[in-house]
Amino acid sequence: MSDSIASVVSYLESHDAQYLEELIDFLKIPSISALSPHQGDVRQAAEWLQERLKRAGLDDARLVETPGHPVVLAHYGHDPRKPTVVVYGHYDVQPVDPEALWRHPPFEPTIENDIIYARGASDDKGQVYMQLIAAEAWIRATGDLPVNLVFFVEGEEEIGSPHLRAVIESHQAELQANFAVISDTPMYQGNIPAICYGLRGLAALDVRIDGPFQDLHSGVYGGAVMNPAHALAGLIQSLHTPDGRVAVEGFYDDVAPLTATERDAFARLPFDEEAYREALGVPQLFGEAGYTPLERTWARPTIEVNGMWSGFLGEGRKTIIPSSAFAKLTCRLVPYQDPDKVLDQVIAHLHRHLPPGVRLTVTRGDSAPGSLTPLDHPAVKAAEQAIQAVFQQDPAYIRMGGSIPVVVDFQDVLQMPTVLLGFALPDENFHAPNEHFHLRNFRAGAKTIAHFWRFASEK
Amino acid sequence: MSDSIASVVSYLESHDAQYLEELIDFLKIPSISALSPHQGDVRQAAEWLQERLKRAGLDDARLVETPGHPVVLAHYGHDPRKPTVVVYGHYDVQPVDPEALWRHPPFEPTIENDIIYARGASDDKGQVYMQLIAAEAWIRATGDLPVNLVFFVEGEEEIGSPHLRAVIESHQAELQANFAVISDTPMYQGNIPAICYGLRGLAALDVRIDGPFQDLHSGVYGGAVMNPAHALAGLIQSLHTPDGRVAVEGFYDDVAPLTATERDAFARLPFDEEAYREALGVPQLFGEAGYTPLERTWARPTIEVNGMWSGFLGEGRKTIIPSSAFAKLTCRLVPYQDPDKVLDQVIAHLHRHLPPGVRLTVTRGDSAPGSLTPLDHPAVKAAEQAIQAVFQQDPAYIRMGGSIPVVVDFQDVLQMPTVLLGFALPDENFHAPNEHFHLRNFRAGAKTIAHFWRFASEK
Repeated sequence: MSDSIASVVSYLESHDAQYLEELIDFLKIPSISALSPHQGDVRQAAEWLQERLKRAGLDDARLVETPGHPVVLAHYGHDPRKPTVVVYGHYDVQPVDPEALWRHPPFEPTIENDIIYARGASDDKGQVYMQLIAAEAWIRATGDLPVNLVFFVEGEEEIGSPHLRAVIESHQAELQANFAVISDTPMYQGNIPAICYGLRGLAALDVRIDGPFQDLHSGVYGGAVMNPAHALAGLIQSLHTPDGRVAVEGFYDDVAPLTATERDAFARLPFDEEAYREALGVPQLFGEAGYTPLERTWARPTIEVNGMWSGFLGEGRKTIIPSSAFAKLTCRLVPYQDPDKVLDQVIAHLHRHLPPGVRLTVTRGDSAPGSLTPLDHPAVKAAEQAIQAVFQQDPAYIRMGGSIPVVVDFQDVLQMPTVLLGFALPDENFHAPNEHFHLRNFRAGAKTIAHFWRFASEK
Repeated sequence: MSDSIASVVSYLESHDAQYLEELIDFLKIPSISALSPHQGDVRQAAEWLQERLKRAGLDDARLVETPGHPVVLAHYGHDPRKPTVVVYGHYDVQPVDPEALWRHPPFEPTIENDIIYARGASDDKGQVYMQLIAAEAWIRATGDLPVNLVFFVEGEEEIGSPHLRAVIESHQAELQANFAVISDTPMYQGNIPAICYGLRGLAALDVRIDGPFQDLHSGVYGGAVMNPAHALAGLIQSLHTPDGRVAVEGFYDDVAPLTATERDAFARLPFDEEAYREALGVPQLFGEAGYTPLERTWARPTIEVNGMWSGFLGEGRKTIIPSSAFAKLTCRLVPYQDPDKVLDQVIAHLHRHLPPGVRLTVTRGDSAPGSLTPLDHPAVKAAEQAIQAVFQQDPAYIRMGGSIPVVVDFQDVLQMPTVLLGFALPDENFHAPNEHFHLRNFRAGAKTIAHFWRFASEK
């Protein structure tokens, strides 16, 4: 098989010019899912991809219609002796405003210094196309692929994937696989190839405190009633201990503790706390005692006020006791915390800490659990070997603090783990003007993916 | 002198029809100080009053011009053997919108069931005119007044008296008096004649907490920085103990404690806690432990959030760590608390309780001390005797939780105490549609004022 991979790599290298041309074609299509005038463009990108997958040698490339933009589905192989891999990505892109800040028009892809500038270059059309050419190179160079593949590429990621879960549910048989791989995340700190194996989940709630039936004159009534703003402040304060732990009873019960191996690995990653602090503009970092910033943001749960308000917000002064106070809260959850259980705990905590004289109403919002790909999963090892083969260095094992809903959907609906193997750089302006993608990583990424299939097939 | 007062009272009673007619004339003038199209009307009211004071027998009735509306000044007597009394009031009125809710046009005064309906009937033209006829009755019926009087009636009370302090400062000699009397407050609980001898002061401040340089993604950064909303909540929470005391060090140092006599007097006032609670719509009352609601609102200081906000306030959800958080606070102060000292204490407290990882900025706002007329002041005793003479009952000794800036100005600039002796009822719709004034209280008020001059002169 090592001869095979050599020929695959050679195929990729010899077709570089063609691949760049085609990437430019793909990026030219302004597939902005959020803007309805671009509806036809989004469809055109789906059809381009469908056509291109066919041409790469995949079977049954088709569009799965949804009430919004279609999902592109394609297959290669149904060999029961091979592992099956789902490749997820998205062909839709963010809006481009403010367009004036782009150095090149966002849909006229331009290569400068081996960097391609265009909306979607790194997020995520460039990385989807990178997966595609890895598959094509295998098929063309060797006549086969070492794995069965399912390409599953949606057109609504940038608007929150409103129809994706329904498509996954209605295509469960077709999506049965050993694992999924997604190239929609950055490498670590700009240049260290990374395998992301954990994401945090989320559980949201809205808090409302009601006191007097209307705002009261703070002179006439001040002192006789509980001020709802004070009550809300007390509740928010009660959520944390002074050393930064969440004070909600039972909150940490189901948290997967960081293993010594993980903590060692995180600790070995280059991380300049002072630069990080300075970039955020805070006088000092702060978080849960006993954990590093990476541990806190990647692998520890939080509860956070996203917004709060009460009373008079205008200019000047209005001497009132507000009649009510509001807060929007979200918990970031780590693997094995159950969002419903955590919300129950937080709501019970709020009721238990409610001061006298006001009423509390809590509304549950969206939630999703965290996700964790076991580090001993064969796909993780295969990704590590692929990175070593191409980059001549060990990958960083990282987690991410945010959520990627499709990973949870794969986990929930298909009981399928996901390997996040992205080749963008963190500063490549996803969602901002002048989005770009370093072509050296595009090329190295395609080769790594090609190796990845091989190593995965050997497990 | 008791013969004299009998003839004064008789004069008031025999001129009732004329006085009601004139009151109607005065109330017809739409002297809305807040609305510039009524500027001429405000002046007309001032001139009407000036003319009427002259006709009542006062000397030197004139308009003191200001950058806004004029103050009406008039004198009676400069007899060094008599006490001198400043009568403060205001001839301007609130706007009338929503005018559709008025049962009679607001500037077509209408008497129904011995109640006069008009904007300004009770707040404060009716009560100013009531003082005027008391003085006139003395002069006409006896040829003299038992006190020297200074009428000092402004036209900007409803817009915050922006020029009053300057007029007081520039007319200090002319305003030298033993005390001031103001009829611009209600009786207690609707029908108990009341002497208000204490007002709370105010000290305002704005709090700003800054954290990260911009709103941060709560997934990517949550757990690594102090959330400014949490920091603000903690600061607000730190201002009170769970039993409702203000937790700021030194805050109560200079508070005049309630005397046993005062507490007894407050306790004897009719006060239905359950009805009060229900009217405010709160599940239970709450305030400083060890004090009744009247004590808490009249004679105990507070610190109160009037408004606060941080982060995302819109519909839906934005999973951010806000970059900043804001609160507007006011303290209600009681006599002998120094607003500057209190602000210093609160600011020191906030800095002392600031959690790590954020920056605090505090801006001082307006402030004014509380005021207290000593209960053993001869004018207070005189007011009590006057009420007993007319109402055949003891007055309620009350305080009020709000501020009346002119009382502080008199106290600060002239070292002159004020007796608040009003005859409106609390539900006579000051500032609302269908403002009215019970004529029985207009009449009883004029007689009480007439007695008041006599008793004050006998001290």
